Amino acid sequence: MEMTNQQVRLAARPNGLPKESDWELTSEPVPDPGDGQVTVEILMLSLDPAMRGWMTDAPSYMPPVAIGDVMRAVAVGQVVASRQPDYSEGDHVVGAFGAQEYAVADGPGLTKVDPSLAPLPTFLGALGMTGLTAYFGLLEIGQAKEGDTVVVSGAAGAVGSVAGQIAKIKGCRAIAIAGGAEKCRFAVEELGFDAAIDYKADAVPRALRREAPDGIDVYFDNVGGDILDAALANLAMRARVVLCGAISQYNEDRTRGPSNYMMLLVRRARMEGFLVFDFASKYQDAIAELAGWLSAGKLTAREDVVDGGISAFPTTFLRLFRGENVGKLVLKVSDAA
Amino acid sequence: MEMTNQQVRLAARPNGLPKESDWELTSEPVPDPGDGQVTVEILMLSLDPAMRGWMTDAPSYMPPVAIGDVMRAVAVGQVVASRQPDYSEGDHVVGAFGAQEYAVADGPGLTKVDPSLAPLPTFLGALGMTGLTAYFGLLEIGQAKEGDTVVVSGAAGAVGSVAGQIAKIKGCRAIAIAGGAEKCRFAVEELGFDAAIDYKADAVPRALRREAPDGIDVYFDNVGGDILDAALANLAMRARVVLCGAISQYNEDRTRGPSNYMMLLVRRARMEGFLVFDFASKYQDAIAELAGWLSAGKLTAREDVVDGGISAFPTTFLRLFRGENVGKLVLKVSDAA
Repeated sequence: MEMTNQQVRLAARPNGLPKESDWELTSEPVPDPGDGQVTVEILMLSLDPAMRGWMTDAPSYMPPVAIGDVMRAVAVGQVVASRQPDYSEGDHVVGAFGAQEYAVADGPGLTKVDPSLAPLPTFLGALGMTGLTAYFGLLEIGQAKEGDTVVVSGAAGAVGSVAGQIAKIKGCRAIAIAGGAEKCRFAVEELGFDAAIDYKADAVPRALRREAPDGIDVYFDNVGGDILDAALANLAMRARVVLCGAISQYNEDRTRGPSNYMMLLVRRARMEGFLVFDFASKYQDAIAELAGWLSAGKLTAREDVVDGGISAFPTTFLRLFRGENVGKLVLKVSDAA
Repeated sequence: MEMTNQQVRLAARPNGLPKESDWELTSEPVPDPGDGQVTVEILMLSLDPAMRGWMTDAPSYMPPVAIGDVMRAVAVGQVVASRQPDYSEGDHVVGAFGAQEYAVADGPGLTKVDPSLAPLPTFLGALGMTGLTAYFGLLEIGQAKEGDTVVVSGAAGAVGSVAGQIAKIKGCRAIAIAGGAEKCRFAVEELGFDAAIDYKADAVPRALRREAPDGIDVYFDNVGGDILDAALANLAMRARVVLCGAISQYNEDRTRGPSNYMMLLVRRARMEGFLVFDFASKYQDAIAELAGWLSAGKLTAREDVVDGGISAFPTTFLRLFRGENVGKLVLKVSDAA
């Protein structure tokens, strides 16, 4: 019996929150590897807010997913067939394999991971792009240093939860902004933030003045919108605003710009964007440091794994925009061979 | 006969464009200097967009002018009485003397200028805060370097006209954005910009793509609003956006933030604010360099001097927001002794 590969393809460019009709579930035979390639069975799929941007054809840092193509997605999987000398059947690998059950990839698209070091979802989270994004955003762009007051929005999410913990490791005061009492409890009690602001219950501008009375030195933004404006209003002199994401705006027709941007002048501050890919030459050292913190118990990796199979991709993806995930959202595609 | 000092005082915080009733013209005797002070007769008054911000009680980099106080203003004048050993009658001095005919000031509030070096209005423009703002904004914040494409908004205004010329001196390609054919002609023919975009006649986003096909390395912003958004949409990788002003927004109820701010992430760019005061320790070297360029004919100082006396302050000030001035707007208060 020929094995089939179920795939999630982009059927239409969404307006607002992606609907079921924006996706198409297709099925084709599992592809054989060509020369120099491997076939990977996908085990765990990474679900990221940035994927919403890849569905839109506005100018961005990479071309949008074409209509009819398999949705772009990072995943961890296991090699099931190899014609690549560096990879053997059974190896665990991470790559941009797409929202499907099997993928063919070549050497440069693969990164080997050691499943004895951490559970597989962690290689998509704290030890993956997510952890690296938090690491370089906070330390290279944010230039966070001991004694700084660091505010992180989306603090219970994948990147935010790691950024806040790195801030603590580096001797900063870390303040979380998250939605709901449970996420705030999680941020303080499990991640070690010094304080948490529930944007659904608190007036964020006032809460920030209370929790950061001397102003914010580093604001790590995952959300945009009103919360970005509240942070801008409370910057310390020479503050750094790290633009990592703007999840509150991704499903809006038109992004709302920060009204308080001229506070960058008042406080001689900067706002800077980055992409984790720019730091590829430093990945190895950063991963080693993150793994060290993890094994020393200084860093908690938290993943929110949905056991739904590939067909659950469309509904699981929406959890990101409803604020339903705590930690890194991962879709379990297969239990592996 | 006792000499009188006419003064322009802030009567009310304006909504939108300042009205006549937002000002009060008062008169009092010319003050005598106290010990360590001088009395200055004001000759030329600097009119700056930033003054609109000083009239508002929103959080800013200095306290607002109090209702009933003489309007804060920088001016050049001549010492008419001195009880300060470093200053003699007849000395020309620059300081924050206020919108009035005479002021008392002490040593730290005074900077001596040599009127044989340049016409007096130039000490408020290219050889004053305006020139320094352009210099540090472009070179320190913008990090403009040879070969960069530099775009300057408000390019026919006080700061913009100097910023563009410094960009040319440093070997950049300089593109002006200004309102109207005459300002664009001035920018190219008299200031030496490589190209000019008339935002009243051209579609700025398209014109920027045409004039800066490889993207903008440094965007020096004096205006905010739609033009800032257009520049953000056309940044080069690792671009620097220098926040100097936002004149299009100063009379609005609520500042409109830049919708395209996430292009800072797409292009790994930064947007940074500054105040010229932060570079006080480097003023002397910068003024020497600016004066050298001026005397070598590399830098054109252009002032728009209105000969109206202090009572013309309220109406002259509005010229800034109507885009009526070319170069540095200066109000002539007196012809001097």
